[in-house]
Amino acid sequence: MKKLNVAILGFGTVGGGTYEILKNNADIITVRSGAEIRVTKIFSRSLKKGLPKDIYTDNIDEVLSDNSIDCVVEVLGGVQPATEYMIKAMDSGKHVISANKAAIAESWKELNEAAERNNVKFLYEASVGGGIPVLTAIRGQLSGNRFTEVTGIVNGTSNYILTKMSEEGLGYTDALRQAQELGFAESDPTADVEGFDAANKLTILTALLFDEYIHPMDIPRCGMVHITEDDIRRASEKHEKIKLIARAYYKNGELRCSVKPEGVAYSHPLSSVSNEYNAIYITGDAVGDIMLYGKGAGALPTGSAVVGDIISLVK
Amino acid sequence: MKKLNVAILGFGTVGGGTYEILKNNADIITVRSGAEIRVTKIFSRSLKKGLPKDIYTDNIDEVLSDNSIDCVVEVLGGVQPATEYMIKAMDSGKHVISANKAAIAESWKELNEAAERNNVKFLYEASVGGGIPVLTAIRGQLSGNRFTEVTGIVNGTSNYILTKMSEEGLGYTDALRQAQELGFAESDPTADVEGFDAANKLTILTALLFDEYIHPMDIPRCGMVHITEDDIRRASEKHEKIKLIARAYYKNGELRCSVKPEGVAYSHPLSSVSNEYNAIYITGDAVGDIMLYGKGAGALPTGSAVVGDIISLVK
Repeated sequence: MKKLNVAILGFGTVGGGTYEILKNNADIITVRSGAEIRVTKIFSRSLKKGLPKDIYTDNIDEVLSDNSIDCVVEVLGGVQPATEYMIKAMDSGKHVISANKAAIAESWKELNEAAERNNVKFLYEASVGGGIPVLTAIRGQLSGNRFTEVTGIVNGTSNYILTKMSEEGLGYTDALRQAQELGFAESDPTADVEGFDAANKLTILTALLFDEYIHPMDIPRCGMVHITEDDIRRASEKHEKIKLIARAYYKNGELRCSVKPEGVAYSHPLSSVSNEYNAIYITGDAVGDIMLYGKGAGALPTGSAVVGDIISLVK
Repeated sequence: MKKLNVAILGFGTVGGGTYEILKNNADIITVRSGAEIRVTKIFSRSLKKGLPKDIYTDNIDEVLSDNSIDCVVEVLGGVQPATEYMIKAMDSGKHVISANKAAIAESWKELNEAAERNNVKFLYEASVGGGIPVLTAIRGQLSGNRFTEVTGIVNGTSNYILTKMSEEGLGYTDALRQAQELGFAESDPTADVEGFDAANKLTILTALLFDEYIHPMDIPRCGMVHITEDDIRRASEKHEKIKLIARAYYKNGELRCSVKPEGVAYSHPLSSVSNEYNAIYITGDAVGDIMLYGKGAGALPTGSAVVGDIISLVK
């Protein structure tokens, strides 16, 4: 039987979720992948709860120089040192799997070039839409299509806040507080509510769908912090829901991108995407309109995508 | 550059759509797959419009005995002779791609055994949900999950009729006539409106999700021909839409399946799946709830899935 030794960089939400799935579902994963997948090292700044002592290290070189490791899962978050670690891992012949949208959007070219020159795989399904298998679909099953447009709800925090404002009549501040209490928003929610996180994801989607790399800071962007109860009410009078929409499409041969709040008609499938859920709506010349919907964040949904990438490596 | 020679069996809706995509999108398909994909033979009972004479044959043995053909796309429909042709193609060392849900559901074991003993691929993404990449997701990105439930709207004809009854207040007979005029229903709609087609698809979903093969005739099944305007109205008073739902789930360790009309709450994403669209809603222990939505039929959407399978072969 094939074997795959995996190292995980980071033992936060996604790292913990990935480890848990690999452990709890080892039986089905072994059968379905035809391989024994073992986590042989976990890099973390400190020994956290649930992290087995015998595979813990706080020394990144112990991972990078270990030739028995086939694949590095990078779930540290943040652009650096994550990008440096990923490139070093590929330069030492290891496949890299990442959920880190900020690093991937920022360092798209460097990371893909590192994968190419080392002839290793660089996979990052978990970076957009959590557990939703959208990037794999774009690169695989849908790849016979010329794509013309993508419209996504790709930030669960802002969608949760907008849903609560819409359904319970809360103002932004109260809805944010509720999201923070339930763990759907961080104490500093800027990246989510100002659309930076959605822009990172749109950069990745656009690169895959249209073969065009657009830096996230070059995407026209407007957050949702200024949306009021009155905006929500006026939208509902027009049978619309306000959503933070990441959009890219061709107009007169030119690619246009934006992240901003938009009214979505009740009749559109994206309008029923509520709370922390995400959905990506894609148009291709053959498939027509297609939408993939699911949980955009969280330990197990995001871990599901990381594990999916690991299984695709051994297949 | 790699080369892949493809034969298509059948030049109806799906065969024509597949051929059109491979021709019109050859440039991007070559780049993305890294291979030159050529249709070198098309088997059809007669020379139809759009079918080039030089690759046409009405003799199946010309396809089966041609060792230059790497892959056979079977889109004839019906259980026989399609199943016989697929098994013979695999026994002669050819990969097989099929959109034929009736044949696959009926002959699941024989077809998969033929693929295994000949060490060839048997792919059938187009058989469930048209262009929606659901089977590939189940076998790939989602395969780290233990699945617990699937709920699907997998028949576009019955969904179109139910949508028109609900939105325009039509009775069944008028809605069916409209569907037939627009090409969304066949002159004999039995397989669609009585749930036989949905049962075939549920057999395939259940085999992949739960590793259990249940013959379509063993699935408790109730069609939607008896649904009246009054049923639709009573559902809407409960904020529900009536949909023909294919469902499989575990209860007390036992797998339960059904195809029948059910009321779906407005708040559930499946309720916004209208007209000829399909959607498959899956629950896994890691990913949680996920839904894949798109066009469940038609030349180009279904062709998109066939082409996706062809590209995955060469990758």
